[in-house]
Amino acid sequence: MPQVIDLNSDLGEGYGPWRMGDDEAILGVVTSANIACGGHAGDPETMFQTLVLARERKVVVGAHPSFADREGFGRRLIPSTTGEIERQTATQLGALMGAAALAGTKVRYVKPHGALGNLAAADRPVAEAITRAIAAISPDLAVLAISGTELELAGRDRGLAVYSEIFADRGYLQSGQLVPRKRDGAMIHDPQAAADRLIGFLTTGLMPTIDGPAIPLAAQSICVHGDSPGALAMALHVRDRLRAAGFALAPFLTDAV
Amino acid sequence: MPQVIDLNSDLGEGYGPWRMGDDEAILGVVTSANIACGGHAGDPETMFQTLVLARERKVVVGAHPSFADREGFGRRLIPSTTGEIERQTATQLGALMGAAALAGTKVRYVKPHGALGNLAAADRPVAEAITRAIAAISPDLAVLAISGTELELAGRDRGLAVYSEIFADRGYLQSGQLVPRKRDGAMIHDPQAAADRLIGFLTTGLMPTIDGPAIPLAAQSICVHGDSPGALAMALHVRDRLRAAGFALAPFLTDAV
Amino acid sequence: MPQVIDLNSDLGEGYGPWRMGDDEAILGVVTSANIACGGHAGDPETMFQTLVLARERKVVVGAHPSFADREGFGRRLIPSTTGEIERQTATQLGALMGAAALAGTKVRYVKPHGALGNLAAADRPVAEAITRAIAAISPDLAVLAISGTELELAGRDRGLAVYSEIFADRGYLQSGQLVPRKRDGAMIHDPQAAADRLIGFLTTGLMPTIDGPAIPLAAQSICVHGDSPGALAMALHVRDRLRAAGFALAPFLTDAV
Amino acid sequence: MPQVIDLNSDLGEGYGPWRMGDDEAILGVVTSANIACGGHAGDPETMFQTLVLARERKVVVGAHPSFADREGFGRRLIPSTTGEIERQTATQLGALMGAAALAGTKVRYVKPHGALGNLAAADRPVAEAITRAIAAISPDLAVLAISGTELELAGRDRGLAVYSEIFADRGYLQSGQLVPRKRDGAMIHDPQAAADRLIGFLTTGLMPTIDGPAIPLAAQSICVHGDSPGALAMALHVRDRLRAAGFALAPFLTDAV
Repeated sequence: MPQVIDLNSDLGEGYGPWRMGDDEAILGVVTSANIACGGHAGDPETMFQTLVLARERKVVVGAHPSFADREGFGRRLIPSTTGEIERQTATQLGALMGAAALAGTKVRYVKPHGALGNLAAADRPVAEAITRAIAAISPDLAVLAISGTELELAGRDRGLAVYSEIFADRGYLQSGQLVPRKRDGAMIHDPQAAADRLIGFLTTGLMPTIDGPAIPLAAQSICVHGDSPGALAMALHVRDRLRAAGFALAPFLTDAV
Repeated sequence: MPQVIDLNSDLGEGYGPWRMGDDEAILGVVTSANIACGGHAGDPETMFQTLVLARERKVVVGAHPSFADREGFGRRLIPSTTGEIERQTATQLGALMGAAALAGTKVRYVKPHGALGNLAAADRPVAEAITRAIAAISPDLAVLAISGTELELAGRDRGLAVYSEIFADRGYLQSGQLVPRKRDGAMIHDPQAAADRLIGFLTTGLMPTIDGPAIPLAAQSICVHGDSPGALAMALHVRDRLRAAGFALAPFLTDAV
Repeated sequence: MPQVIDLNSDLGEGYGPWRMGDDEAILGVVTSANIACGGHAGDPETMFQTLVLARERKVVVGAHPSFADREGFGRRLIPSTTGEIERQTATQLGALMGAAALAGTKVRYVKPHGALGNLAAADRPVAEAITRAIAAISPDLAVLAISGTELELAGRDRGLAVYSEIFADRGYLQSGQLVPRKRDGAMIHDPQAAADRLIGFLTTGLMPTIDGPAIPLAAQSICVHGDSPGALAMALHVRDRLRAAGFALAPFLTDAV
Repeated sequence: MPQVIDLNSDLGEGYGPWRMGDDEAILGVVTSANIACGGHAGDPETMFQTLVLARERKVVVGAHPSFADREGFGRRLIPSTTGEIERQTATQLGALMGAAALAGTKVRYVKPHGALGNLAAADRPVAEAITRAIAAISPDLAVLAISGTELELAGRDRGLAVYSEIFADRGYLQSGQLVPRKRDGAMIHDPQAAADRLIGFLTTGLMPTIDGPAIPLAAQSICVHGDSPGALAMALHVRDRLRAAGFALAPFLTDAV
């Protein structure tokens, strides 16, 4: 198991005059930033400002495409063909790459957001639509996928570099899937419990589950949130505990720094 | 003066379920297509479909960025800083480039739309913001500017290839500017008169004006419209008359076919 | 069965610079107009202009609320709670009523559009959310529902006046439901066949089905379309044939003229 | 001068997943709430939730229409005809009234927001367009205008009840206008200074200016902000100081409680 681990978080999730979370604070914690590109959040100004901040903090930049659904923040499953998903992914990714060129940085990977991310985890044709769009734009772009999902498989089949993430604050099932948000054990609210679990996982490669024994998972990154004071406190605690336990925090794209 | 001339038109100006003009018909007439990229019109589906049609017709593709103003179709001057204009241009251009990668074609030039185009013609800092965004994304992109404007100068200063256009259906002033839409002589409605004038210009390099003698203008392209049956009829007539007068129609980007 | 029948159509389905169908022509055919109110289509200008035209043509005005989904034209099922649907209905209805006050006319009824209409036909809680919103705004508003649906029942339970419609160009199943668009017999393309069927239905009260004998249906209105030249031609033919067969065309809201 | 004064604030200025300021806290301070209605901010959910909170807190509700400009938060002057402004006002006002019917409360007055408010203060035809829209919807609606502006005059000419406001945190010029935001003295940041000035004004009817002696102004309401922790602290301080100085806080619409 790695002695080096990446922390990633969703950033740039404002729109017009509105902000979501404390991007500056979370950019001091993470090593990779998934930046909204106009689907569920983000506009030219928000994208650009977030990209500049990420470049200044030497945080690796990924695109965070989603259904075009600001009112639902990309959390609603918008009925779409795989072709439509392919075009959404390509245009959102392109928009962020355009802003990155101005901001003096580069988009290095893609992680789908919210309902699109969940769909890409479970539905192979959707995963293939997304990876087809990525590969058409650049075969040098990597994929950041939820560990154990169709998106990992689709990305590898397409010849893309694929990295996997686990969640700092979410419970797991024996199946490898996340505990659905409505069930007990879905969310881990205690920063200490979250850090203990992550250190255990990074040491043994085994992730505890709520419905049986721990399961093997592979991950090069841990997803943390920063969209509330509580989420930011957990991210800070996890970061400090990982360091104290001897893990180095570094981008999963090791050539990117 | 050239014996070869380009015809360009604004395309892909639909949105969601709505269409503007007969793109298929106009793609049979022009040699360069300015495609809306989500500002005044265009969405991932519209961009992609228009790009595929342009590729099939071997029409050269340019981006047609604008103020983010669908309700006003990009014809309203939205108060913006030059920085905001730079970011709008970069993200819209990037979005179209993403769709072009999927569609198997390439964006080769940029022509700003509507109120943004008029502002870039007259306002040097705005022209510089736009050309800065273009150059940051790719120095290989060309600029298509209204003949005799600040955008031409800013593009050349930035080291970009700059091409100039005249309008098939608009009157000119001694100053080289278009006759404002509210004045008599602003629009040329008669296809024969428009074709006569264009052939005269291409033969002599002199453009008639409504307030004095003809003036010298340089142009590698003629802008025609296709957003109404009358506009399409004029485009067809102009094309046929130019051919009959011995002019070859070909893209201004001669390496693009 | 009635010797008097209403014709209704969806109108004002433009947005910003875009138009959908020939509203002026269809307003010369129908007696009731379902006007888009900003959900799937419509903006203040489009609403106002359509309301003025309807008033001038003495066509009765209804609101045509929908999911807030311009890109999908209200045809996609956007995941929503019944509370969200209630609020969407109330604000869209209110917006159109505001424009109607300016245009010197009144909104008299509500007919939900597209995916929202289909959902309200089949799902009682959604039908109740819509009728709750209508009744909260004014108990004098009527409901125009697809014949034989939950929306009819919910509207009557709420104490609202409910009127029912059949479709000029859609096939029916034994169950009373429309033939799904993907099955053979879903659409009736031949104006003569459509008119024959409608006259038969109005004479006998029985609607032919594609999977068995004709079924009894009740209807005070026939929905016709005007969003394409073919649709408009069918609407004109149906209108003329109904008149020739001795039916009077008049609004289902008989006090509204 | 009144021994009773109203405090008003802009509320419901979120959109989709985003919030602006602490509406619950500011609803504990003010007596009148200007609620965004979908132009610069607000959507059906935000409107409804804010209306319910206002009703629970017995705060009088007004509509806060604006240019349709979320990205610019209604602070940009969007080129518009007076007719377009009239339709925007009517549809936004109608939308909020629709939500209010569901929320069990009533919209009692209208205060235009941001760039539209500034334009209505200085431009009589715009002020007339807004008051025409208000009167068409209901002559019982009041106008809340910046003290000393064209909107006051247009509202009175139209026969509407007009109330006037001053700002807790803005400096004034001899002309009666606010000090432009870019000049020294535009903003009053010190809560004590703001409260002192307001108490002085309420006692004498004279407002200090930065370019000469104090001027007479009439006002039935004071506008406070709650969109930042500092703004909320000032609102709380002003409220407490006014009470301590013997002023009763009550809605300017005295029949509304």
